[in-house]
Parts: sequence; C-alpha cells; structure tokens
Amino acid sequence: MANLKHTMKRIAFPLVAVAAVAGFVANSAPASGDADGEAAPIFGIKIPPGYRDWRLISVAHEEGNLNDLRALLGNDVAIQAYREGKLPFPDGTIIARLAWSYVPSEANNKVFGRSQSFVAGSATNVQFMVKDSRKYATTGGWGFAQFKDGKPADEALLKTCFPCHEPVKARDFVFTQYAP
Amino acid sequence: MANLKHTMKRIAFPLVAVAAVAGFVANSAPASGDADGEAAPIFGIKIPPGYRDWRLISVAHEEGNLNDLRALLGNDVAIQAYREGKLPFPDGTIIARLAWSYVPSEANNKVFGRSQSFVAGSATNVQFMVKDSRKYATTGGWGFAQFKDGKPADEALLKTCFPCHEPVKARDFVFTQYAP
Repeated sequence: MANLKHTMKRIAFPLVAVAAVAGFVANSAPASGDADGEAAPIFGIKIPPGYRDWRLISVAHEEGNLNDLRALLGNDVAIQAYREGKLPFPDGTIIARLAWSYVPSEANNKVFGRSQSFVAGSATNVQFMVKDSRKYATTGGWGFAQFKDGKPADEALLKTCFPCHEPVKARDFVFTQYAP
Repeated sequence: MANLKHTMKRIAFPLVAVAAVAGFVANSAPASGDADGEAAPIFGIKIPPGYRDWRLISVAHEEGNLNDLRALLGNDVAIQAYREGKLPFPDGTIIARLAWSYVPSEANNKVFGRSQSFVAGSATNVQFMVKDSRKYATTGGWGFAQFKDGKPADEALLKTCFPCHEPVKARDFVFTQYAP
C-alpha cells in the first residue's frame, strides 16, 4: 500500500471527514463547520472537523486523578497504518483521544445484581496527535493539541505532551495499540 | 448494553476497511470475507460485515466476572438515531458491543509514575443487537447475537439476552447512551 506522505498545512484548513455521512455536527466541540475555531498554542492545531466520526483504535480506563474512560479514534491514515502494523505513522496521521468521566451505571448494576458497571459520563477534554514530520521535526514528527469545550489548552500544558511521549519512541511516540 | 455470563475469546477475522456501511441486511449478511459465517441461533443473525469500522457510541468498563473494557459501535442508522435522540430505534439499527480483557499498561504506568492505566488486551467476544420490529416482535423488536472466534453462542445463552434488556424498555431496551 502506498505510503502516504502529505505535506499539509493543518492550521487553518479543515480535514476531510472519513465517513460518508452528511450533516453531522459533533456534540462536544464546535468542530464541524467552525473555520474560526481557535488553534492550540505551540503546534497551531485546530480541532479536526468530523473527528467524532473517526474509527476506533482502542479504549482505556485511567484511575487516579484522571478517573476517566477514554476512546482513541483515528482518521483513515491512522487506521490504515495501525492495521498494516506500519511504523512510523505516515504524515497525515491524526489520532484523537476522547475522554469522559467515569460514572457507575445504576441501570446496568440493577441488571447485573451488583456494582460493577462503569460508563462514560460527561466529556472531559479531547487531545490530538497530528503527524507532520517536517513541521514537527523537533517533537518526533508529531504536533499535540488539547481542547476543552472547544477551547485550546495553554502553552504550559502543551509543553508537557512530547516529553511524556518520548519513552515510547520505539512505537513512534504513540502509546495506544490497536484493539482487534 | 448489558453483557452477562461468558468471557470468550474471539479471533480477529478479515476486516474490510470501508468508510461507510450501507444497505445492511439484518438477517442474512455474511461475515467479512466469510459468506458462510454461521448464524447465531434463535434470531438467525450473522456477523455484520465491516462492523469493526462502525462509529463509536460509547465505552464502558465491567468489573467482576467480566473484567473487560468495552466499546459500543453503531451502524449509520444507529448513530443517526442516537444523535437525533430518536426512540424507538428504527428498523435497520445495529449496535455492536466489542470487548477486550482489562489489562494494566506498563508503559503508561511508567509515564504516569503510578499504577493507574488499563487498556484493551485480547478480544473476548462480540455481541449484536439488530432491530427488526416485525421479525423480532416478540423480543421488543430486537434480535440478539453473540460470537466468539467467529462462532455463535448457543441457544441457552441467547435466551438470556432479552430478559436482561427488558428493564430498560423505556429506552427501547438499549442500555448504552451516546457519549458526546
């Protein structure tokens, strides 16, 4: 399969949505059709339109301070690379990390007859990793962004992204593996 | 969506990387690349092709015997109904419940500096709810199926599906709510 190496400027330009569904508007972020969405600092990334429609990479649960349930979604380039087991990820890869508060489900627990079921509550924040090996050469080829209610995180926070990802350099700085 | 008794392994089978799924026929669609896939008993449902490419409804964690992380994916009809807040779900709705073993992530924990991160391990089993209000009139309009390694669960197990879903009749027998 051809190695897709895009050169692109992602700051001001919407991405092509993956799924062939018209008229979808993301609930948790003013993404779709919002060309004026604020770019996150340092890497200059805006919320990719239609990311809520992207395909599933995997899921996770974080205990501790985060206390969330999370889903990783990937655009076409990301999903293709994951399924081919291709590293490094090609330019154009975007991985979205969605997260929600970790909430017990009363309805489910009633049925199970015990307290065991935890589901997604309200959305917390969304993070993106965008691959552009030229533009983001100093951070392993990846740009990082985080948004909450459509608003970007500040510079201090975004400075911490890459240093935490550095330990998984052998997996092209991506922690999440594909869930079959 | 409630899943009860069994934890089973599921072999990853060939996936079709499609951007959209249209025109799915509930009761006779062959599995991806497997036109001879066996139908599950009682409701006669086969594995819908391309379900791994469907969009995310929500995620959950089950403790106890299940001890899994799960993702609910929906076909176009399902996703549209969820986003419109439409009940009952229209005929043609299919909801897939994927699940994986609940596994601590050593790489993640190293970075967080504490044991807190749990990710998807190996696939356990997959379940489907298929809406056809005529064909499945006696079970609230829904047909149920479960597969492990591409093989359907037995009749005894599938008899237990609808009784557990009955308590959420007010939500058209579907436990899972849409994660924004």
